[in-house]
Amino acid sequence: MASIAFCCVKSTAQATSRRSFSPNVKWFSRVARPSPCSLPGTRTTGARCMSHGAAAGGSRRRGALALSGAAAVTAAIAGLLANNRHFRQADMATSVPKAAEETGQEGDILTRCREFMSPPVTDVAVLQGRKDDMCTRMEMLIMETQADFCKALQEVDGGTFQVDRWERKEGGGGISCVMQDGEVFEKAGVNVSVVFGHLTEEAARQMRSRGKVLKGKDGKLPFCAMGVSSVIHPKNPHIPTVHFNYRYFEIEEEDGSKQWWFGGGTDLTPIYLDEGDAFHFHNTLKQACDKHHPHYYPDFKKWCDRYFYIRHRGETRGIGGIFFDDLDGPDQEAAFSFVKSCAGTVVPCFLPIVHKHLTQPFSEQEKAWQQVRRGRYVEFNLVYDRGVKFGLATPGSRIESILMSLPLTARWEYMHEPDSGTPEANMLEALRNPKEWV
Amino acid sequence: MASIAFCCVKSTAQATSRRSFSPNVKWFSRVARPSPCSLPGTRTTGARCMSHGAAAGGSRRRGALALSGAAAVTAAIAGLLANNRHFRQADMATSVPKAAEETGQEGDILTRCREFMSPPVTDVAVLQGRKDDMCTRMEMLIMETQADFCKALQEVDGGTFQVDRWERKEGGGGISCVMQDGEVFEKAGVNVSVVFGHLTEEAARQMRSRGKVLKGKDGKLPFCAMGVSSVIHPKNPHIPTVHFNYRYFEIEEEDGSKQWWFGGGTDLTPIYLDEGDAFHFHNTLKQACDKHHPHYYPDFKKWCDRYFYIRHRGETRGIGGIFFDDLDGPDQEAAFSFVKSCAGTVVPCFLPIVHKHLTQPFSEQEKAWQQVRRGRYVEFNLVYDRGVKFGLATPGSRIESILMSLPLTARWEYMHEPDSGTPEANMLEALRNPKEWV
Repeated sequence: MASIAFCCVKSTAQATSRRSFSPNVKWFSRVARPSPCSLPGTRTTGARCMSHGAAAGGSRRRGALALSGAAAVTAAIAGLLANNRHFRQADMATSVPKAAEETGQEGDILTRCREFMSPPVTDVAVLQGRKDDMCTRMEMLIMETQADFCKALQEVDGGTFQVDRWERKEGGGGISCVMQDGEVFEKAGVNVSVVFGHLTEEAARQMRSRGKVLKGKDGKLPFCAMGVSSVIHPKNPHIPTVHFNYRYFEIEEEDGSKQWWFGGGTDLTPIYLDEGDAFHFHNTLKQACDKHHPHYYPDFKKWCDRYFYIRHRGETRGIGGIFFDDLDGPDQEAAFSFVKSCAGTVVPCFLPIVHKHLTQPFSEQEKAWQQVRRGRYVEFNLVYDRGVKFGLATPGSRIESILMSLPLTARWEYMHEPDSGTPEANMLEALRNPKEWV
Repeated sequence: MASIAFCCVKSTAQATSRRSFSPNVKWFSRVARPSPCSLPGTRTTGARCMSHGAAAGGSRRRGALALSGAAAVTAAIAGLLANNRHFRQADMATSVPKAAEETGQEGDILTRCREFMSPPVTDVAVLQGRKDDMCTRMEMLIMETQADFCKALQEVDGGTFQVDRWERKEGGGGISCVMQDGEVFEKAGVNVSVVFGHLTEEAARQMRSRGKVLKGKDGKLPFCAMGVSSVIHPKNPHIPTVHFNYRYFEIEEEDGSKQWWFGGGTDLTPIYLDEGDAFHFHNTLKQACDKHHPHYYPDFKKWCDRYFYIRHRGETRGIGGIFFDDLDGPDQEAAFSFVKSCAGTVVPCFLPIVHKHLTQPFSEQEKAWQQVRRGRYVEFNLVYDRGVKFGLATPGSRIESILMSLPLTARWEYMHEPDSGTPEANMLEALRNPKEWV
């Protein structure tokens, strides 16, 4: 019964099937069956399972041909960052990072799928049939990131993730892994979604406002979007909350040409400041960024501080990390390679911090401060977070997956202000004046 | 020292002075001193302390001249309600309710001020100097409503409200009364604010979108806004959360003419449905409404259900009450009289319900359900509430007063859905399908 649920989810947006992760699931018996989406390698509609082999192949070496103009590019990047707009291919076409060369080493799809928390959203046979497409490679990456992170958290907690598959009526679906009230984690959510269909007029307008000129066929823009996102709220106030999200977007214009871009980031929200943790976290991200472009870390660090800002409080949500959006250069291969490096840092960024504070005792007062900070986390997520706002306003969204980022418990105290000189005031000071940690 | 703080607050938006309510305060010794705003009866600027004696007097009997056209008016009201726009004077000019005749019986200002939680925001001498102005009468009403409600809550709780006076740099200020972690109330906030100045371009645009065509002098629109608002979160899950807000807005156009309107409402958010409570609450509101217009209760009840709707959850925040906005008819006197009636129901709506459940025992499970419902309350207030959104986006707002509506504690459980047939499911059913309670 369970194996049917994995490959054949119900047809409503809210339909889910639950299971705990088990390595012995038998869902591979169905991988050869064609999905309603398409047969391997074929294309049913412009929107569903868009094929990108040509685009990816064509741009794979483009960056190698454009090694000059780094200074001009830097200025352009700074301007683009300030305007929160796209990283255009031309702007970012500087050096070809080493990591960009590490392509095509992703291994057999079926073998990799065996390690996931659940079969991928897209039928395995479909993925096998278009294994070089960016959509396939990204879906495999986000599934892998979800599995690696969930398993690492399960190991340290001793608990088990609840795994829900859900289907989006309009096209696609997702896999939500949630562990609630564990030994170590108050609430841990790791969500994958892969959705496709046509952009609504509102969404298309949003795209345009971010610098894209998009022409749809009869006003319709076939799109495909996927990502992995996670928020982990630990119980011990000395273990910070962590959040990450890596995503890929593809949109087809009237003339059949495709626009694509990546976005993402990882950021840390400590309750009490530990400068060693801050250094480790930022340095791990910096090393991953530096492999790809020397400006990535400093620029994306600033962007992160700017994005995760609770304006009405005059403080950042946490001590940041990296954040980027609309990355469509220097070429698709290099951009993917960068995102792969970032996704690869999730476990090494966070788990050493968890282990360091795992047995650290805490007082009732420290727990209360954590609850107040959790309240600020809720304020940011509900008032400012673009993803949450977009999700809540989009019909057919799976609300439980969007709001799994909210903590299990939170607190709002009227006029709460820590006494100066306390560790709580020290934390606030870092949130009011973002620092360089590396 | 304390008496100075009352009349001479600091000059920043966040400046506050705290006290617990005491009937023996000595702040009346300073009432004769002219405020920086103006001397009694004089007018310093167009924006500050706008005089409305003529406007109020001129329209006082206007409604009496227009008793016909009730059916057309009803249709017009329905249309206006559907569009969430102004109740225009012409539309509402039907019968003159009896209560509209009860004007000018508000008593001596100084005597009334002695009962307040704190001196009014506007200097008492100024209020005495323009005692017939709607701004004065409304400020006295909201101060009185705050005091009556706070005292009733203090009596049942045994605790004391913390009283903070704050000043808005751009003009005006407020008085926030908050009781936190009391015997009966987890968090109780009753806030008064009286602000004036010039409308920002954004605010002016918002006005226009609500049906007002406003012409400012050099793009500036002097305005004055005031209101009392309150949210009470009790500890016992059998005592509902209550919210009310009554407000008045005045704006001066380029030619010196004034636009004014009232808004407000009272609504109940039970954790467990008690049909007796629902009837009592709605019936008390209905009786107050019926004194003024037979359509007020049914129309404003529907408006309330529509406004306090958590769209992404497909449920209302609570079981409603009444809600209205942009009420500028049938005439200023009648509208004020209606608002006065509404404000007068706050204590009789809520306190009998508090007393009824005061000693009712509750389980841990019932407390947990309360916490989940508190989470939904936070979702509504941060995602949808127009007042909160406007406040958070407005520079100079006092964030602590805006967010005092958030509960002390809240909880978000992933995929929480009560079993069918339980009291929790019964509550949800009423939130998903709003009912007629009277």
